[in-house]
Amino acid sequence: MIDPRIRKYNKKFWYSYAMGTYPTIDLLKYRSEKVSKVLLNSRALDSEGVREIKELCRQKNVRTEIADNHIEHLAVKENTYAIGIFEKYEDDLDINSDHIVLDQPRNMGNIGTIIRTMVGFGFKDLAIIKPAADIFDPTIVRSAMGALFQIRFKYFETYEEYLEENGKHNQYLMMLDGATKIEEVKFEKPMSLVLGNESSGLPVEYKEKGTSIYIPHSNDIDSLNLSIAAGISMYLSSRK
Amino acid sequence: MIDPRIRKYNKKFWYSYAMGTYPTIDLLKYRSEKVSKVLLNSRALDSEGVREIKELCRQKNVRTEIADNHIEHLAVKENTYAIGIFEKYEDDLDINSDHIVLDQPRNMGNIGTIIRTMVGFGFKDLAIIKPAADIFDPTIVRSAMGALFQIRFKYFETYEEYLEENGKHNQYLMMLDGATKIEEVKFEKPMSLVLGNESSGLPVEYKEKGTSIYIPHSNDIDSLNLSIAAGISMYLSSRK
Repeated sequence: MIDPRIRKYNKKFWYSYAMGTYPTIDLLKYRSEKVSKVLLNSRALDSEGVREIKELCRQKNVRTEIADNHIEHLAVKENTYAIGIFEKYEDDLDINSDHIVLDQPRNMGNIGTIIRTMVGFGFKDLAIIKPAADIFDPTIVRSAMGALFQIRFKYFETYEEYLEENGKHNQYLMMLDGATKIEEVKFEKPMSLVLGNESSGLPVEYKEKGTSIYIPHSNDIDSLNLSIAAGISMYLSSRK
Repeated sequence: MIDPRIRKYNKKFWYSYAMGTYPTIDLLKYRSEKVSKVLLNSRALDSEGVREIKELCRQKNVRTEIADNHIEHLAVKENTYAIGIFEKYEDDLDINSDHIVLDQPRNMGNIGTIIRTMVGFGFKDLAIIKPAADIFDPTIVRSAMGALFQIRFKYFETYEEYLEENGKHNQYLMMLDGATKIEEVKFEKPMSLVLGNESSGLPVEYKEKGTSIYIPHSNDIDSLNLSIAAGISMYLSSRK
């Protein structure tokens, strides 16, 4: 792998950064073959987290480098102990597993929280319909708290393109005007749980692609936050 | 009311700002008696939202002022059409209603999202145990998207102080090592749903104050995001 130039992230880069101890540990655990090197903060070499990182790097044959200035330049949070630099990647989704499909998501904090929640409820496959935020933006990596490295994900140009590749999945579409109340839905596997973007939701024409679902809530708010709707629907569909 | 000096928010101020059209509309609808004045952007006077604001201000006898420079100075987002300036307040909680109790919450985005979700699921009373983020920080006001003005809330120095005032509420404590799985809990009203802070959760000694509850999730994540745990527990407890 070419040595990456260390500078603030730009989505055109072929590499990105996992900032902080726990994201770096998960990067090393689940995607060590993608790691170019790990930058360490000299003041934290004896911390428990950094010791775990050093041990993982030894096992997986990954370079470490003490690089206080680089860390200070890159880090958003104070006292960042470690930054893992990794080559960006994309996966094939598992065609037998349940999928989460995010249609044109924009808010990075929401995407990170959804990825973390996916792993919590056993979802390991994420489809993202473009245009969408860059999943390797360090903000998403950080807010997913390492969970990003535990899932497979793939971008699609359109929802139709996703459906062509995943025809046997039952489609469950979260929509404010969905036909079925979520507690009445019998989720049939394999399934795709499809969520729209933060401001406009799913396009109305998606409705006929499967079972449209709503989460009952009062009219005193316009809609639930995307990550809350995702969390409730992932919880319920994985418990049934 | 004294005319507030318009400068960037500081938690010591006796007033705060609702930034953007929809938070300002909800401020006028639900807390008009607290509004000092509303700043409007001259470029947006014919937008639907600003017309609704002007109509509400007329009805509720609230001053408006065209103040492009002030808005530009205060606003975080581009194209902010309106900013409502209001006197900060605190309420008594309804002793017969269900409560959400946040113990030492720090993350403003989480608090805002939780408040919006509360309103979605019919919770109108929020207790906050100190130390905690300032609920009137414009970041929270914005992320609650106006829902802040629809709830009652009150700060307490300690959880014990909260319990003294709300002794008849059944306490349901969300804890990673809770005794009962959430789907097995029969929520008895009036109830308090108690959630700990983002990094440490609830103190272990809270456990004996009521029913401790966990949301089953895989061990591949440390915990669910606070707002996700809050969303799932509010949804389930309000549906039963």
